[in-house]
Formats: sequence, structure tokens, C-alpha cells
Amino acid sequence: MTALSPDVREAIEAGNLAHLVTLNPDGSPQVTVVWVGLEGDEIVAGHLAEHKKVRNIRRDSRVSLSMETGGFDRRGFANYLVVSGTARVTEGGAADLLRRLNDIYAPGREFPAMPDAPGLITRISVDRVSGVGPWATA
Amino acid sequence: MTALSPDVREAIEAGNLAHLVTLNPDGSPQVTVVWVGLEGDEIVAGHLAEHKKVRNIRRDSRVSLSMETGGFDRRGFANYLVVSGTARVTEGGAADLLRRLNDIYAPGREFPAMPDAPGLITRISVDRVSGVGPWATA
Repeated sequence: MTALSPDVREAIEAGNLAHLVTLNPDGSPQVTVVWVGLEGDEIVAGHLAEHKKVRNIRRDSRVSLSMETGGFDRRGFANYLVVSGTARVTEGGAADLLRRLNDIYAPGREFPAMPDAPGLITRISVDRVSGVGPWATA
Repeated sequence: MTALSPDVREAIEAGNLAHLVTLNPDGSPQVTVVWVGLEGDEIVAGHLAEHKKVRNIRRDSRVSLSMETGGFDRRGFANYLVVSGTARVTEGGAADLLRRLNDIYAPGREFPAMPDAPGLITRISVDRVSGVGPWATA
């Protein structure tokens, strides 16, 4: 696990939509767009049900997550962040997390009615950071 | 291969950044953000060099591509498009494609100087469309 730099932490907490990639049983990639936040050095996303991405992570913990972060680098290419990491799923806490993220991603809009269920949280430990922006190494 | 609906074609040609997922030799996902366009029913992206994503596609043709398409569905979730498909790589034509896409993705900004090389084009045949928006089935 990699400790996250201030630039990366800021991008993750800024309300940028996250494209979460998991691996299907046949090894092909699956993508959904999710809201994310931080808890310590883990990236967290809440799920109200046992979605396909959750089942994928339980079987193969390798994930990637990418987000557009706004602005351009000096060549004129759009900035974006990619993290590669290892995910785990914990039970409960999804509704509280989604309500917290709703204030960041959809301020002033009410979150759709939630089922009375504890839900699940995906927690991603970051192994590698890439993309275009202050976190790019190339 | 699936013929693309007008909604999907419009989203792909609208200058939305595309998060392209390929598979690394160990099966883990690799993500980069690229410009895309259409040629017939194939999604195309240009590369000036034999990048990792190109080498990945040559070895395993399964890819996904996701993009934020603007606006929200009736629940208030951000619209996005995901296509799962099969990619192939063809030689040449990258500079012309990138110049064409530059007018869509970065109008008024000049594309960085290109090496004098034919480059490569990734061509994606779409097998499945998902996400949030008019193309969502769920």
C-alpha cells in the first residue's frame, strides 16, 4: 500500500466521478462510475446492494480507478488520475457514506430514497498512481 | 459486434474523454484516458507510439471504455456510457486521426508537435453497452 500524496488526496476528495474497474469471472474488465471518498489512506465507495462489481472484488481484488481532475498539463492534455490497487469489501455503513458523499457530489440534491439495509463499502488500498497531472511520473 | 444506436454514436463523437481499460499480462486492468471518434461502427483512438495499452490489446483484445456524458438521470445520478468490446490495432493513420479529434476535444488549441511516424489506431467493436442514460437497460 502506498501513502497518498496531498495532490492525490485532494483529487479523490474533490467530487470527481470515479470510473471503477473490476474483473469479471472470465477476466474481462467491468466498469461502473461511482462516488468516492477517503478513510485514512483507503479510497472508499458505498453500495446499497451486492452489485456485480462487489461480487467481482470478492473473487479478484485487483481494481483500477480513474477520474478526470480538471485542467490541462503543459502539453494541453486533460489532467486525470489513475490508481491501481487492491480492494476489500466490508459490511454496513453504505448509507452513511453515501449521504456524506452526496454533499460533495450532489450538493443541494437529495439522495434517492435508500432501502433499509446496511449495504457494503469497497475499500481500496492504492498500489500505484499514474495519469496526467502533478502525480504523473512520466 | 453491435450496431451503435444514435444516442451512443452522439456520445462517442461529442468530445467526451474516454477511459480506456486494457488488460495487463498478469490480467490486472490498465487505464488511460484517450480521445475517441467513430469510423463506421468502430470506436477509434490514435496512438503515436507502441504504448503499453497497445501491447496489451495485441495480447488480449478485450477492452472497456467509459465516458461521462453530462447531465443526470431522473434519480439524480450522473449520466455515463460504458462499452465493452473487442479491439484490434492497425498501423498508420494516427496523426490524421489525432488532428481530426483535436478539433473536437481541444478546439483552438494546437496539438503538440508530432513525431514523424505513422502511429497506430485502436479500433473497438462494441459487444455491449451499459451505464446510466438513454442507453441503460436497467
